[in-house]
Amino acid sequence: MTARNVLWIMCDQLRFDYLSCAGHGSLATPNIDRLAARGVRFTRAYVQSPVCGPSRMSFYTGRYMRSHGANWNQFPLRVDEPTLGDASKALGVRNVLVGKTHMRADDDGLDRLGIDRASDIGVHVSQCGFEPFERDDGLHPTASGGGRTRYDEHLRARGFGGANPWEDWANAGDAEGGLASGWLLAHADKVARVDEAESETPYMTRRAMEFIADAARDGRPWCLHLSYIKPHWPYIAPAPYHALYGPADVKPAVRDAAERVDPHPVYAAFMDLRVSRNMARDEVRARVIPAYMGLIKQIDDQLGELFAFLESEGLADTTLVAFTSDHGDYLGDHWLGEKDLFHDCSVKVPLIVYDPSPAADGTRGTVCDRLVEAIDLAPTIVDWFGGRPRPNVMEGRSLLPLLHGRTDLPWRRYAVSEYDFSMLEVRAALGLAPRDSRLFMLFDGRWKLVHAPGFRPMLFDLADDPDEVRDLGGDPTHAPEIARLRDLLLDWALRDHARVTMDDDAILAYGPATQLERGVMIGYTDEAEVAQARADYGLD
Amino acid sequence: MTARNVLWIMCDQLRFDYLSCAGHGSLATPNIDRLAARGVRFTRAYVQSPVCGPSRMSFYTGRYMRSHGANWNQFPLRVDEPTLGDASKALGVRNVLVGKTHMRADDDGLDRLGIDRASDIGVHVSQCGFEPFERDDGLHPTASGGGRTRYDEHLRARGFGGANPWEDWANAGDAEGGLASGWLLAHADKVARVDEAESETPYMTRRAMEFIADAARDGRPWCLHLSYIKPHWPYIAPAPYHALYGPADVKPAVRDAAERVDPHPVYAAFMDLRVSRNMARDEVRARVIPAYMGLIKQIDDQLGELFAFLESEGLADTTLVAFTSDHGDYLGDHWLGEKDLFHDCSVKVPLIVYDPSPAADGTRGTVCDRLVEAIDLAPTIVDWFGGRPRPNVMEGRSLLPLLHGRTDLPWRRYAVSEYDFSMLEVRAALGLAPRDSRLFMLFDGRWKLVHAPGFRPMLFDLADDPDEVRDLGGDPTHAPEIARLRDLLLDWALRDHARVTMDDDAILAYGPATQLERGVMIGYTDEAEVAQARADYGLD
Repeated sequence: MTARNVLWIMCDQLRFDYLSCAGHGSLATPNIDRLAARGVRFTRAYVQSPVCGPSRMSFYTGRYMRSHGANWNQFPLRVDEPTLGDASKALGVRNVLVGKTHMRADDDGLDRLGIDRASDIGVHVSQCGFEPFERDDGLHPTASGGGRTRYDEHLRARGFGGANPWEDWANAGDAEGGLASGWLLAHADKVARVDEAESETPYMTRRAMEFIADAARDGRPWCLHLSYIKPHWPYIAPAPYHALYGPADVKPAVRDAAERVDPHPVYAAFMDLRVSRNMARDEVRARVIPAYMGLIKQIDDQLGELFAFLESEGLADTTLVAFTSDHGDYLGDHWLGEKDLFHDCSVKVPLIVYDPSPAADGTRGTVCDRLVEAIDLAPTIVDWFGGRPRPNVMEGRSLLPLLHGRTDLPWRRYAVSEYDFSMLEVRAALGLAPRDSRLFMLFDGRWKLVHAPGFRPMLFDLADDPDEVRDLGGDPTHAPEIARLRDLLLDWALRDHARVTMDDDAILAYGPATQLERGVMIGYTDEAEVAQARADYGLD
Repeated sequence: MTARNVLWIMCDQLRFDYLSCAGHGSLATPNIDRLAARGVRFTRAYVQSPVCGPSRMSFYTGRYMRSHGANWNQFPLRVDEPTLGDASKALGVRNVLVGKTHMRADDDGLDRLGIDRASDIGVHVSQCGFEPFERDDGLHPTASGGGRTRYDEHLRARGFGGANPWEDWANAGDAEGGLASGWLLAHADKVARVDEAESETPYMTRRAMEFIADAARDGRPWCLHLSYIKPHWPYIAPAPYHALYGPADVKPAVRDAAERVDPHPVYAAFMDLRVSRNMARDEVRARVIPAYMGLIKQIDDQLGELFAFLESEGLADTTLVAFTSDHGDYLGDHWLGEKDLFHDCSVKVPLIVYDPSPAADGTRGTVCDRLVEAIDLAPTIVDWFGGRPRPNVMEGRSLLPLLHGRTDLPWRRYAVSEYDFSMLEVRAALGLAPRDSRLFMLFDGRWKLVHAPGFRPMLFDLADDPDEVRDLGGDPTHAPEIARLRDLLLDWALRDHARVTMDDDAILAYGPATQLERGVMIGYTDEAEVAQARADYGLD
């Protein structure tokens, strides 16, 4: 292997169980399955927050949400937050984006520090450490000034014109007398007005190929983050994907009438959201889920093209490939829509990593059920490029040892995820201040605690109740379990997460001899004691 | 009142109880007492970490140590950490330094963000948000390249010459055949070789007066941080202060033989440090404490001069004056030297605030026993200048309401302090990794919990044991108290501390109407539902 690259594919809102390799019955994803057959599929990969913005900021920094502080969509990532891009830059690796990051630049920070947004550094920090070959967050409503992306220009050039081709062609169907907006769940069974080849997923796939071809001329190693907006809503697919699946392919919602009897107040407020009320309706599910499946199928087909391209470019044996998602989608399970809470369908994501090196030959086609977190991917990439992840900065752990079959290594005992619901109606419904609108999940492989400050906890026993329909948080017989998990949460919460300017190595290199050598004689009585210490420390 | 200024005086390593207004029997501090008679003396003011660096970074940012991440001396403050200086700048106020901050600039961050250190912004962030009228951290051993400060130049000009006047004149006495280094405890009873008028405290006081005179010509309001290095070691005083106090003035050490019987392992490791072993010796205390008292007396005398100057400049009625310290000094109490742990003599500091406005007339000369934290000072200053402290950035609370007699306001129920002992021999002695070398204090006004991850807690009942000599942390009868305090610690630890880029106001202004107005139609079924919502939200 000479050049070592990374192709990091991310879907948006893809559930862990909507892949055939993960056991979905009616949805075949042979190309993703083939990746799993060559790599390792992680069955317990958890995101650090089940919503795009903070989840991605954790992926891109290797840091928990409580560390990076970008708690929700459009919360800026502070200007000096260390990213994978900073680590890559130090290793001479290009960290390149095609697609979505949901990064919002810290305008106040840029102004305060006098950083020119157009400078290399300004772009780097404004783009979350990525070199934006193509940045497109994939949501461009006209009311927010949509219609101005490179993709819009592309659509216009292909004859899909107007003020907002993204909204009017790629994410709309036809209706009598006008457009059927793809934003509306009632239109999810319609066919998108755009040609399949010009829809978002193939467009971004081609852009990825253009970058890869281009990068060969540059010569530097690269990490390409190909970040699809799909199968995120608007739920509407182009032909033929709009019609591949129908109501018969829709699995029954995972839910229980008992969930609505005396529910936890926070859960109750989430069930009462508009999106939950609508997604809980069977007729809505029957329209939306086939479109969701079609969009996934399209991604799988595109990945077939992309993997073939990698092969033809001679890069398949030198490129580590990771496939994941930023969070899942309730799709009506648990009487909920969207994501935002901690049932597995929301907080657990697909994660497949293919390491082409011979060291990984022993694990090909296996599954790994270790507790893995989204923050593990950034240190994995640093490790792959020969760097040493800084544990005081990147809070995740490299997965390479697991890919290389090192089952003897101690591993984390629990995964943690956080959610800030201050931007949702849930906050007002519960009468909370922004700072109190927080939830914390701690999952130890069996027990899942959801700590809700100011409320009783929620608790699920996934061994006994894999569907997570029985909240045991109010049951006094489980108090010892809850106390044990709270202790772990306290351990986690008290960890250092802000000591980004001082590495462990520098700490370990410091000692009383260092201090004395610098002439700082703390607590010495007299000259004889100093002389003795200098001798003991070998300073003379 | 026209111009409103702040004079923020900080001592270094001054215990809360070494002032006559705080009940010290043999040490008279009439000028500080007079300030207390005009203002409010806070009897329960706690620092966020009982060691210079992190304590000061908390004072200067209004943020807990776990938030700013500068966990120990010489740990850089990250380049975009928001400071009091940023808030002052936004209010048109000069934030000016004379003396010590212990700030270390974030060189990596400056390089990464391309910030020129000599630019205004570069100086601002490198100096922790201060305009350095005179920066002097007050510890300049020759072995670390000492002898190059403005103060050294001043000493040379006054005839105290050589390579390192700070070390050889201001912090040394005479010995047969050479110098008696002030670093060594055996020399604490000697007289410093410098003239009193040229020693550090009067020098810095004069520099403060020079700034104040200079600022009158500038016209902008100012916050002057006059930050004395004393009574911090080297413990050696110039004449006559070296001889004002003697062994008869030294109070017995606050300690109990029982403290050394089966002590908590972390406490045991601290007792075993060289400085603790030496400072626990009565003959050492008899030399050191009189010098410590002399240095405090000198500060008090200098403050008399400074307050008279403020008066003569006509500023006494428009300048808020705060007097405090960054932490205390064990001085052999509890068999310990230095600071670093959470007994009151280390973690509690003097805090006196004089607000000249009529609103404070009702509280003059009173004491306040609310739980106050070092992080309260920065928001107090912002409030005084008419600004609104951002609660997602500054975690402390303005003290102005307390100064104005608002006893009806709800106040915090506990104070928290942290300590990172990874840089001390304690870490190696206990065989810990840097990340595990942490302690947390939570004090609710009666019970003081010291949480030590990996060890049993320490617990003191200050109602029953005001000297804190009985650690109840291993006593099972106190398990309910410990559990209650741990719950509070969990609440505190899970608070947001990194959401610095998104203010509460922006969160509160956002809602489902905002989302719909921006064209982001999440979870709507059809056009009729959108139309209804638009009407409900008044968007049409």
